[in-house]
Amino acid sequence: MIHACIRKGSFQDSVSLMIISRELSQSPDVDDVSVMMGTPANKSLLEATGFWHACFEQATPNDICVAVRSQSCDASIIAAITAQLDEALKAVSAGQGSGRSLPVARRFASAEQRLPEANLMLISIAGEYAAGLAHQALDSGRNVMIFSDNVTLEDEIALKQKARDKGLLVMGPDCGTAIIAGAPLAFANVLPRGVVGVVGASGTGIQELTSQIALNGQGISQAIGLGGRDLSAQVGGISALTSLQMLADDPQSQVLAFVSKPPAEAVRLKVMSAMKAMSKPVVALFLGVPVSQACEGNVWLASTLDEAARIACLLARVVQIAESQPAVAGKKIAGLFTGGTLAAEAAMVLAGLLGIHPDHGHLHGTMLAHDGHRIIDLGDDFYTVGKPHPMIDPTSREQLILGLAGKPETGVLLLDVVIGYGAQRDPAGSVASAVRQLMAQRIRHAPVVVVAVVTGSEQDPQCRSQQIATLREAGILVVQTLPEATVLAHHLCTCNVVTSPASTSPLLSQVSVINAGLRNFAQDLQSASVPVVHYPWSPVAGGNRRLASLVEQLG
Amino acid sequence: MIHACIRKGSFQDSVSLMIISRELSQSPDVDDVSVMMGTPANKSLLEATGFWHACFEQATPNDICVAVRSQSCDASIIAAITAQLDEALKAVSAGQGSGRSLPVARRFASAEQRLPEANLMLISIAGEYAAGLAHQALDSGRNVMIFSDNVTLEDEIALKQKARDKGLLVMGPDCGTAIIAGAPLAFANVLPRGVVGVVGASGTGIQELTSQIALNGQGISQAIGLGGRDLSAQVGGISALTSLQMLADDPQSQVLAFVSKPPAEAVRLKVMSAMKAMSKPVVALFLGVPVSQACEGNVWLASTLDEAARIACLLARVVQIAESQPAVAGKKIAGLFTGGTLAAEAAMVLAGLLGIHPDHGHLHGTMLAHDGHRIIDLGDDFYTVGKPHPMIDPTSREQLILGLAGKPETGVLLLDVVIGYGAQRDPAGSVASAVRQLMAQRIRHAPVVVVAVVTGSEQDPQCRSQQIATLREAGILVVQTLPEATVLAHHLCTCNVVTSPASTSPLLSQVSVINAGLRNFAQDLQSASVPVVHYPWSPVAGGNRRLASLVEQLG
Repeated sequence: MIHACIRKGSFQDSVSLMIISRELSQSPDVDDVSVMMGTPANKSLLEATGFWHACFEQATPNDICVAVRSQSCDASIIAAITAQLDEALKAVSAGQGSGRSLPVARRFASAEQRLPEANLMLISIAGEYAAGLAHQALDSGRNVMIFSDNVTLEDEIALKQKARDKGLLVMGPDCGTAIIAGAPLAFANVLPRGVVGVVGASGTGIQELTSQIALNGQGISQAIGLGGRDLSAQVGGISALTSLQMLADDPQSQVLAFVSKPPAEAVRLKVMSAMKAMSKPVVALFLGVPVSQACEGNVWLASTLDEAARIACLLARVVQIAESQPAVAGKKIAGLFTGGTLAAEAAMVLAGLLGIHPDHGHLHGTMLAHDGHRIIDLGDDFYTVGKPHPMIDPTSREQLILGLAGKPETGVLLLDVVIGYGAQRDPAGSVASAVRQLMAQRIRHAPVVVVAVVTGSEQDPQCRSQQIATLREAGILVVQTLPEATVLAHHLCTCNVVTSPASTSPLLSQVSVINAGLRNFAQDLQSASVPVVHYPWSPVAGGNRRLASLVEQLG
Repeated sequence: MIHACIRKGSFQDSVSLMIISRELSQSPDVDDVSVMMGTPANKSLLEATGFWHACFEQATPNDICVAVRSQSCDASIIAAITAQLDEALKAVSAGQGSGRSLPVARRFASAEQRLPEANLMLISIAGEYAAGLAHQALDSGRNVMIFSDNVTLEDEIALKQKARDKGLLVMGPDCGTAIIAGAPLAFANVLPRGVVGVVGASGTGIQELTSQIALNGQGISQAIGLGGRDLSAQVGGISALTSLQMLADDPQSQVLAFVSKPPAEAVRLKVMSAMKAMSKPVVALFLGVPVSQACEGNVWLASTLDEAARIACLLARVVQIAESQPAVAGKKIAGLFTGGTLAAEAAMVLAGLLGIHPDHGHLHGTMLAHDGHRIIDLGDDFYTVGKPHPMIDPTSREQLILGLAGKPETGVLLLDVVIGYGAQRDPAGSVASAVRQLMAQRIRHAPVVVVAVVTGSEQDPQCRSQQIATLREAGILVVQTLPEATVLAHHLCTCNVVTSPASTSPLLSQVSVINAGLRNFAQDLQSASVPVVHYPWSPVAGGNRRLASLVEQLG
């Protein structure tokens, strides 16, 4: 049978109550306990799950409904359970051992007074009330993150349109994760700060992507959540487009990563074209949408979260390396390869970046020739008739390297260095010597940046790490893979060094939060030193919507 | 003007002569020096490059032609150059300081006597003579690696057909790299031994692929070269198919990696179907062929060399981890996820492995249900109505884990563990406790293997590495990415633990080499402790083909 009672006027968040329900269910003589606020939705749920009791009729959304299912008819059970409930609620409001006391404001207006610089409201109250509170926040000029679900699509559209008109951002509803200006919002991980700005329509998608970025040695500038419906045809990606623009203007975010489940096709195209219009490299993962092309202009397409993270990290390394190099924007790439397949792969990757098809003619070992860029296979017959292969004899490549002294239009030299049995004793040494001479001649009028990859192992006679050291001593940039080298070469020739004086969104520089709903979220923000005031929201006028609306007009 | 002379009957390999030419060109009063054997091809070259001198008319392929271009008319120049040439040749035959003396046999028959167990001939003589020598090797029951280029297509086809009929392998012509049973052949790198068997139609392709495998922490069992034309329509992939079969039967090669530039489409299909018929996982890179699908059955498709290496390493880790696990082949996967996007990605990867489309219905959070395999998103409304999300409250997942005790058909449990702010204080602890109970009940009748991934960082309140340690202490396998976890789960359910008693090719167990051509290759083999005899081949009967053919018939 069901034993029941009501605790009047003691609003608590749903998660705390659900956890308390679970604990109370372990009590002796009890089958199951359900503790919920008396909202209309919860009352239906109590009925559907067999916990209904006639006394709940009287409960308002501000009252706690306590239902106990038990074999026993002993009415003292309910008293024992409510006593335990009161203990548990006391523990919750005492902050569960958190060291600092949490600033709390019982009303929205006092929360605003307490933290006038607050520029974000984090909302995790029952979904049926979330939209009303979000409108209040937007009306007062604040951005909003709605963790709550069960917000209607109509409310979401209205909120996002209002935000767009006011130059504000709405993350969510059902937005589980965000990291803004270092502030961990809701389900966020503690991550190193870095250059990758993330936008995602999926909470665990953002969490796994950012975790993998950290595992790969890079960090996060921002992670903006959208909520799972933002890319639907109805919402039309309003927050996605706002977020992309904010990150485009954010100097910290040098590389962007976008993650969502399959969006409406029209919205995907709109988002893709916004990404292509940016001057920053972007990785996009539309999970479940087959990838037919690795990159479209500045936009890289990934198939899995770890792949998206890996590409983001590659791009992050590239933009960071390029920062400290002499400016060669607008100049051309000369790729001088001793390995035929390496030349073919570099040509393939560069063709993808340039949006062209690689040259299949291969006249004189030319694997790619486009707009002044050239990738050449020096192992081609044209270069080796009567001469040893360039992996054995460095002469032909040395001469071509020196010849670049008189070609100031070449800004980047891309090289492979193949070691191992059969190869020269010190290929890096010969490359380094030619590059030093080239750089010495070029320094006067036009700089040249040299990028190399080494093929071979640490155990090879020439020793990989020693060859890399020799190259680096000559000022050559050495990266781990050929695609990374090619992307770096292309980035150096195309990156726009003029930093546009865009006005960064203040939200991305410093976050101050009014937290309405789950107390834990405020505590987490506090422990991360983010200014926060907790607003233990409860339904206005006992949850009576008509009365609430009146109170609001009067207020 | 050109000064010239001939050194009679002193055959040398072309690479040594080309390197000597380059050194001699540095001499005073000299513009350029060309030193070549007097083969018909070289004579044409001397003429084409302006080094022709009337005395070369008399030169046979066994004679060295020395040509010196100089402004000076002083005839003593040629004497000075030939003196330096003699010094250089002496240095070459003295083995350039190699510690041990190299076993040398002047005739093929004596090479065979000297190393009767020789099972491979490595040929790097002038291309026009390579086919003849390769036929000799095949006729004597030996495998062949032809480093030489300029072998006709007809000769290549005839050689490969003969080899196939005799159960032998021809690598090349123009095969730059191979590693067989640990022996570095021609341009090979020194790599850790491991479980990845490589087949490649591209020398630097094999070198970069194997180097990247080593950089990613795995090793090589074999690397078999094919030569660039093997996958042409004319040759039809004869050596590719032989190599794949050899590696299929090689117990050391647990994962295969295949690399080539774009092959003839019919040959690509033939090779793909041979790979799909194997019971081992395979990575295939047809460089330049767009990849529309990440995997087809057991065959993974890559777009770049480093990607092929990364996938090969993932598969190598998976087969190695699976070896030490209880047998669950034929059993089913239960994926119980707290993260919706993680569930969706696991379902996508598993669908690819099963060759099906993922379920788009998502009834009750079921992201995939096929043939007994199930991937479930426990954050779905079906599981969370009136209960906290499973990232906050582990109860619902714990119950489902315990429920698997009575489902012996489930052999693998796949889990995510999401940490960070907002999540439980110790999600790994709750998973570990449920898994321990499950395993204890299962150990009696049907084992279960548990695979998990952790989403979150080292700096998170729960600490990534501590969570991983907790999971591992409970006997849970933890891997770094979700695709790897899913591949591992699938491999455990499908891997055939019965090791077929296939007869491994003797070549892959132990290599002994007769080296004809470049002396360096023999020295490198010797330094790697591979039994080798060097055969300083020179053209039979002074290079007269008709006479050579007669001598051969008499011999």
